[in-house]
Amino acid sequence: MLRLAPVGYLRLLQEPSFSATFGGGEANVAVSLANFGDESEFVTKLPKNDIAEAIIRELRGFSVKTENISRGGERVGIYFAEKGASMRPSKVIYDRAHSAISEAKSEDFDWKSIFEDADWFHFTGITPALGKNVANITLEALKEAKKQGLTVSCDLNYRKKLWSREEASKTMSALMPYVDVLIANEEDAYDVFGISASSTDIESGKLSREGYVEVAKKLADRFSFKEVAITLRESISASDNNWSAMLYDGEAHFSKKYAVRIVDRVGGGDSFGAGLIHAIKSGMSAEDSLEFAVAASAFKHTIEGDFNRVSEDEVKSLMNGNASGRVQR
Amino acid sequence: MLRLAPVGYLRLLQEPSFSATFGGGEANVAVSLANFGDESEFVTKLPKNDIAEAIIRELRGFSVKTENISRGGERVGIYFAEKGASMRPSKVIYDRAHSAISEAKSEDFDWKSIFEDADWFHFTGITPALGKNVANITLEALKEAKKQGLTVSCDLNYRKKLWSREEASKTMSALMPYVDVLIANEEDAYDVFGISASSTDIESGKLSREGYVEVAKKLADRFSFKEVAITLRESISASDNNWSAMLYDGEAHFSKKYAVRIVDRVGGGDSFGAGLIHAIKSGMSAEDSLEFAVAASAFKHTIEGDFNRVSEDEVKSLMNGNASGRVQR
Amino acid sequence: MLRLAPVGYLRLLQEPSFSATFGGGEANVAVSLANFGDESEFVTKLPKNDIAEAIIRELRGFSVKTENISRGGERVGIYFAEKGASMRPSKVIYDRAHSAISEAKSEDFDWKSIFEDADWFHFTGITPALGKNVANITLEALKEAKKQGLTVSCDLNYRKKLWSREEASKTMSALMPYVDVLIANEEDAYDVFGISASSTDIESGKLSREGYVEVAKKLADRFSFKEVAITLRESISASDNNWSAMLYDGEAHFSKKYAVRIVDRVGGGDSFGAGLIHAIKSGMSAEDSLEFAVAASAFKHTIEGDFNRVSEDEVKSLMNGNASGRVQR
Amino acid sequence: MLRLAPVGYLRLLQEPSFSATFGGGEANVAVSLANFGDESEFVTKLPKNDIAEAIIRELRGFSVKTENISRGGERVGIYFAEKGASMRPSKVIYDRAHSAISEAKSEDFDWKSIFEDADWFHFTGITPALGKNVANITLEALKEAKKQGLTVSCDLNYRKKLWSREEASKTMSALMPYVDVLIANEEDAYDVFGISASSTDIESGKLSREGYVEVAKKLADRFSFKEVAITLRESISASDNNWSAMLYDGEAHFSKKYAVRIVDRVGGGDSFGAGLIHAIKSGMSAEDSLEFAVAASAFKHTIEGDFNRVSEDEVKSLMNGNASGRVQR
Amino acid sequence: MLRLAPVGYLRLLQEPSFSATFGGGEANVAVSLANFGDESEFVTKLPKNDIAEAIIRELRGFSVKTENISRGGERVGIYFAEKGASMRPSKVIYDRAHSAISEAKSEDFDWKSIFEDADWFHFTGITPALGKNVANITLEALKEAKKQGLTVSCDLNYRKKLWSREEASKTMSALMPYVDVLIANEEDAYDVFGISASSTDIESGKLSREGYVEVAKKLADRFSFKEVAITLRESISASDNNWSAMLYDGEAHFSKKYAVRIVDRVGGGDSFGAGLIHAIKSGMSAEDSLEFAVAASAFKHTIEGDFNRVSEDEVKSLMNGNASGRVQR
Amino acid sequence: MLRLAPVGYLRLLQEPSFSATFGGGEANVAVSLANFGDESEFVTKLPKNDIAEAIIRELRGFSVKTENISRGGERVGIYFAEKGASMRPSKVIYDRAHSAISEAKSEDFDWKSIFEDADWFHFTGITPALGKNVANITLEALKEAKKQGLTVSCDLNYRKKLWSREEASKTMSALMPYVDVLIANEEDAYDVFGISASSTDIESGKLSREGYVEVAKKLADRFSFKEVAITLRESISASDNNWSAMLYDGEAHFSKKYAVRIVDRVGGGDSFGAGLIHAIKSGMSAEDSLEFAVAASAFKHTIEGDFNRVSEDEVKSLMNGNASGRVQR
Repeated sequence: MLRLAPVGYLRLLQEPSFSATFGGGEANVAVSLANFGDESEFVTKLPKNDIAEAIIRELRGFSVKTENISRGGERVGIYFAEKGASMRPSKVIYDRAHSAISEAKSEDFDWKSIFEDADWFHFTGITPALGKNVANITLEALKEAKKQGLTVSCDLNYRKKLWSREEASKTMSALMPYVDVLIANEEDAYDVFGISASSTDIESGKLSREGYVEVAKKLADRFSFKEVAITLRESISASDNNWSAMLYDGEAHFSKKYAVRIVDRVGGGDSFGAGLIHAIKSGMSAEDSLEFAVAASAFKHTIEGDFNRVSEDEVKSLMNGNASGRVQR
Repeated sequence: MLRLAPVGYLRLLQEPSFSATFGGGEANVAVSLANFGDESEFVTKLPKNDIAEAIIRELRGFSVKTENISRGGERVGIYFAEKGASMRPSKVIYDRAHSAISEAKSEDFDWKSIFEDADWFHFTGITPALGKNVANITLEALKEAKKQGLTVSCDLNYRKKLWSREEASKTMSALMPYVDVLIANEEDAYDVFGISASSTDIESGKLSREGYVEVAKKLADRFSFKEVAITLRESISASDNNWSAMLYDGEAHFSKKYAVRIVDRVGGGDSFGAGLIHAIKSGMSAEDSLEFAVAASAFKHTIEGDFNRVSEDEVKSLMNGNASGRVQR
Repeated sequence: MLRLAPVGYLRLLQEPSFSATFGGGEANVAVSLANFGDESEFVTKLPKNDIAEAIIRELRGFSVKTENISRGGERVGIYFAEKGASMRPSKVIYDRAHSAISEAKSEDFDWKSIFEDADWFHFTGITPALGKNVANITLEALKEAKKQGLTVSCDLNYRKKLWSREEASKTMSALMPYVDVLIANEEDAYDVFGISASSTDIESGKLSREGYVEVAKKLADRFSFKEVAITLRESISASDNNWSAMLYDGEAHFSKKYAVRIVDRVGGGDSFGAGLIHAIKSGMSAEDSLEFAVAASAFKHTIEGDFNRVSEDEVKSLMNGNASGRVQR
Repeated sequence: MLRLAPVGYLRLLQEPSFSATFGGGEANVAVSLANFGDESEFVTKLPKNDIAEAIIRELRGFSVKTENISRGGERVGIYFAEKGASMRPSKVIYDRAHSAISEAKSEDFDWKSIFEDADWFHFTGITPALGKNVANITLEALKEAKKQGLTVSCDLNYRKKLWSREEASKTMSALMPYVDVLIANEEDAYDVFGISASSTDIESGKLSREGYVEVAKKLADRFSFKEVAITLRESISASDNNWSAMLYDGEAHFSKKYAVRIVDRVGGGDSFGAGLIHAIKSGMSAEDSLEFAVAASAFKHTIEGDFNRVSEDEVKSLMNGNASGRVQR
Repeated sequence: MLRLAPVGYLRLLQEPSFSATFGGGEANVAVSLANFGDESEFVTKLPKNDIAEAIIRELRGFSVKTENISRGGERVGIYFAEKGASMRPSKVIYDRAHSAISEAKSEDFDWKSIFEDADWFHFTGITPALGKNVANITLEALKEAKKQGLTVSCDLNYRKKLWSREEASKTMSALMPYVDVLIANEEDAYDVFGISASSTDIESGKLSREGYVEVAKKLADRFSFKEVAITLRESISASDNNWSAMLYDGEAHFSKKYAVRIVDRVGGGDSFGAGLIHAIKSGMSAEDSLEFAVAASAFKHTIEGDFNRVSEDEVKSLMNGNASGRVQR
Repeated sequence: MLRLAPVGYLRLLQEPSFSATFGGGEANVAVSLANFGDESEFVTKLPKNDIAEAIIRELRGFSVKTENISRGGERVGIYFAEKGASMRPSKVIYDRAHSAISEAKSEDFDWKSIFEDADWFHFTGITPALGKNVANITLEALKEAKKQGLTVSCDLNYRKKLWSREEASKTMSALMPYVDVLIANEEDAYDVFGISASSTDIESGKLSREGYVEVAKKLADRFSFKEVAITLRESISASDNNWSAMLYDGEAHFSKKYAVRIVDRVGGGDSFGAGLIHAIKSGMSAEDSLEFAVAASAFKHTIEGDFNRVSEDEVKSLMNGNASGRVQR
């Protein structure tokens, strides 16, 4: 997607210019993985125009493979992102109806060939929300992925403007049997599957550890996930968040908590997913995988744009406690 | 429409930012008329979001009335405008499918009330090209306009990406009987109505005066227009154009020709239309009306953005020969 | 006024550019009210030049009526605003001597006609400080306002560079009998009327609730105000303030306190005034009016420029406790 | 003066920012001379504020001496400069009334000490136009300059918004007896002294060589100037000018003519004056002095801002025919 | 190389910012070829730091292969590029001493493996000029290239700041026997090999067709080149150039001449080279190859930055006569 | 040095532009002193090119004397500065090898004449780290400084990328006998001289008062310094630091501690040094000198760029407790 954002803390079109960058759930994960040194590929559909070319150029620059991007369709999805500050929330306006991917067809993707040499497939809940056709394409991809023995991860990423909870529940429930690693934020499990813990109050930011273990366990039990990861965001304000996560793989692991002065939080969840995938693929322990993923995504909050422009070394340094922000010369 | 343009002569997304302004055929005319001191109103349909609010705020700032803009629908139309230079042409990419106006319905507009106290109605050939619904809305507006005795002007503005010549011909021919003043550029008459003169070669920029008189006469004869105005652009390059026009009202008038060093030519035709409407409404003679319209639109080529930010005084000064560009202190 | 500000945290003219926006006490209130959906009008005097045209265009864009702005005089007032950070204070340099409004005459304004259909008149203590002529014009406005039954509000807004405490006291005391709602910050009451509470230390930021009640009561008693509102700013640094207010209408109400990470605090007091006027006009209770006004002005601190670019819905959402800054999608 | 200009070809406040630089007749000359390696000093009055500090910092950076700038007064003069293009003229709005220099007093300047070690004094006709006090200060400076044996040059620089032709004529006539070198553009001689040639048509840009010789001779005869230099601008448009000059020192010399694609023409005249002063002081012949001055000022038209940022070497290279614009590596 | 350039026509560091892009002879050719759809690879040496990573990211984005870039060494070469206008020349300041490539060693490159699957090798005269080590590496590359049957092209590109004519002549003469296609501008042949035609005056821009044929013939005769291409630049000013070329392959072909309004001429020669290589590789006739190369490089003059951001389709359109710059919608 | 920095919190070359300013240890001190009203001079070596001219122009603007800057050599040193946020550290990439100063020779500086009329000489540990030649030049300067009776201060400023601890220890130990006032941060004493206190943990930011006194005493004892000042930075994150210092002159003084919201911390140590020098030269007491230096450097953290753009008045105001950041009107 094309991301159009006012400079700094300006409100939308307060001044006549936009910062124009690219992003979107799966693209963010692909870029992040490439930055960690993994081979990664982004599969979508994009029209034949200069905007799509610019997106592909950007992804390719990050070493993300783009050969299987289907070309055609009407338009590139756009979103407008206004950055909040203090008690003023960030605001996202989507203009992605009729994007090429939202009107893609099964024949646009040859999953058999796409998955050759691949070992992991990641998708987010935004993709099947784009339309029945896309949900169906996702299902086809999942079936082929499992056939070829790929590990599958899914970030629930519920978007209420794209579909109702009922639609989401129905569609996502049909996809979950193919998923090994589930990623969710603190609201998704309830929004999509109606799964919640007793005592949590999301708005207030008061999170109960026990509650999240309960939710993760319920998810893992219902869909037989190998791992369930839940990001835990305490929103003090649009400027300051506490950020941590838990990972449940039969037992529950809780990460360090980072107090983050926010530069740009869009893509935070995606950077967590990428960190987790990279860590698991690298054979890290559950605890380390979780800490890597949280450190990676904490970093993302300090970086402008959707993409998490950090290296594996940087994440490891932070994960190992180097959080003082002293100048590196 | 939202107009997204790279800074200066950069290619699209060569750098990650866009200048974000507003424009579009009829809006450009409305703003231009308001700048000349006329009461003007822009009627369209816009969704309920912050981008639409910004457009309305901008128009209102120019004193263009916006009360009858219908609110609803999915999105604001967008176009991407890359500025050319020398032999590199400017390039426009439209992303306006599914805009609110393109999916508007008859009941979105109460023309009877809209036209109260109005004396002139202007539309461009882009509007009916957006879809049969919009063509139909245009027809309804035209009928009511004539009923209430408004003068009607139309700028043919053929856009080949929106419809075929056949579609354009059929639809526009049905609308022409309501039109008093027809405006066209040197290609429109042929593209829409198949009307051409013997000897003109558009690409080469070689224009024959006689040919244009012939075309205007044929147009006037076929549809009984009171006035036919044709803008005459000699494209030396994307940086330099010669700009003039002719007005046919039974007899043919040719304007002065301006050698223009181009700053931004988008909206040039609209600024001519606005100039002509203003001049006719002000009771200027045919010659003066033409010169006013040409001077106004020559000015537009020196101004960034779709809108012609010049006053009546400035146009009159140029029209009266003050073209030396000496500093005004 | 034209507001010229360096980008970000740069010192004045550290780089050769200015952000150029508009502002000023009463204009800020008018824009804010229009943003809340109220009909509002800004009355001042501006010269006949392009800078004044740009100001009027901007105000009109916000739906602020500008028909009664008197045109003439020498110049537009300017102020230079350097944004502070941490312990470095923001710095404002005024260049408004000889502005059109400061040299306005009684005959520039026909208050009888201006106040037709109006129900509220707001002014700040800056206006009468501009000169005896302007103080006199203010008095004339007040007399006519009362005659026509308008509610009158005044924001004391003492500016030591414009006049001495003695001059302020004398002039403002003569205007107060016409005022229904008085707004002041924690220093104004003392600076203008010598009214203070026993135990307050402004520099230290230590505020005593009882002290403010005492001050408000004294003010109300001396001038028979219906309501006295005092904004309570605890300046932790140029980057962080605590922000709340009290409203005294016979009894004292204290608002919630917001911890604000500051984006731009100029116009904070004006946004409080506008919030209060809107709330009172909307028939909210004293408690709700106060909370609306404080929430509105807390928001202003997160927005660049003088104008409070927030809607009534946004303020109500914050006032109702939605302060976590979570992304709105 | 503080110069506020929109970016590129934008109209004033079309976007909310200004490029903020410095300039003004005598300051421009002082900077230009310093860039040519001459010791130069700028004498004026500036208030005690951060804007004045920034001006002084800038001048000092160019090695212009600022020790005798009198400090005090109300404000720094400002001018707004909108850049024209093609047939759209550049437009300057002055906001310099009540500037510190315009309200300066005799006692602000100790010319006796200022002129110690100086050998040349340059002033423009703008300075005495600021007010009778400043005209008087100029006269005092001239008397002391002559007493100490300085060469005096004056650029007539008539500004119709500052004074009438009558006032200019009276005041300037009293100053001319102290002047050795007179500089004027093609209109000044007529505007200030009513001296004109038979056949010149300024607006049309048609210049007659004989006419200028006649004007120069009349000027020299009336005021006993040693040299009279007249810049000859043919304004084809705001984008293209032909630029040359003549020098009369008993006989008339005409320079090469440069066809200039304009980047910024403000300060063009001042850069000519500085070039001429430098050349004369360097002992160049009349022909060479004229060519140096014209080449220097032709360069100025290609440089943003008031100041002529070119070195003596660059001017000499151009003066010697290196005008092809080939890349210097 | 990292290219640092002031915005627009500002002089170096006139404002405190640089546009930061990438470029350099061979890189420019590689990007251009990739843009035409050819597989291309850039081979150089770059240090291990974030600036080098950014360069590689950019090249990879254009689909230029970067796998054989040797990593190590001290620094990335930098050049500062100030854009000229009118008679003010563009100015380039090199800061590339001690760049990684200039201190590279033979063992940094395994030409045998690099040239696998390659069919063309292009280098410029700048590379061997960086030092004896680099000249030697070039020679090794050439030998291997010939061994593997690649076609070899060389752009003479004499840079007087890097080496003397004597050094250039000696070194380049040793490399020429391996070259099939020689590219030069109108000065290179003389600077490097002392080959000139009778009547040409470079500064004056007066070019004689016969002279160039004579030069090309002499070059071809001395070194047995298959093709000699000479770009013919007529520098009217820094803003306007006429641009054409000749190709000699036994007989002489002269191209169309383009009058170019310059946006950025750096990289013009490289874009010609890339156009020629692409055309020859595509099997175009000599005439068409020349016209393609000239059209491609004419385009480059209208594009900001070193890289020629145009597609094969765009070049073909221009080559086929579509030079009017009319808006493409 | 030329400092190239991305805008805001962007990573290096995330967008294609740099903010381009100047800085470097001793230059920062010289500018700061000049801003406090002291006569100051910067002595270095710079090449003869436009970048060096711009540096000199900037310094001269601040009233720093530049007459003794030796001209010649290859290049200006460059550093790239990426600003960190929250737990992401700032990152500096140096590109200063082969800078003119690093290859300077003894004969480039005539210290005898340079020190005439001087009373203080300051250098940092970076300078001798540039190479043996520069270390030797520093020694020569120190000998002459002592001969002429100047007070000498040194900021240890250990840079591990420039030299090893062993080299630093050997070289710096030879220079220390000439130093009167030693300035160091909390790590330098250990890095350079192996002097540490028992219980300090630098990464954790836990500082023990006693430990620092111990370190200062050891330093003073070993080298007979009159004063040892140690800056105490507690790095909470890249966004927030606590900042204080201690001064040991036989007895230990500890300053107030400032909680700083960081705008730009580069140059923080230099601004402390300048503050201390100014205070000592002004005859302030030890306590006041320390508080002045800490307040000055706390301010620096709120200012963009290397240079501390604050006046003596501003520092005194902060030092006297005015830290609330209230707007100054």
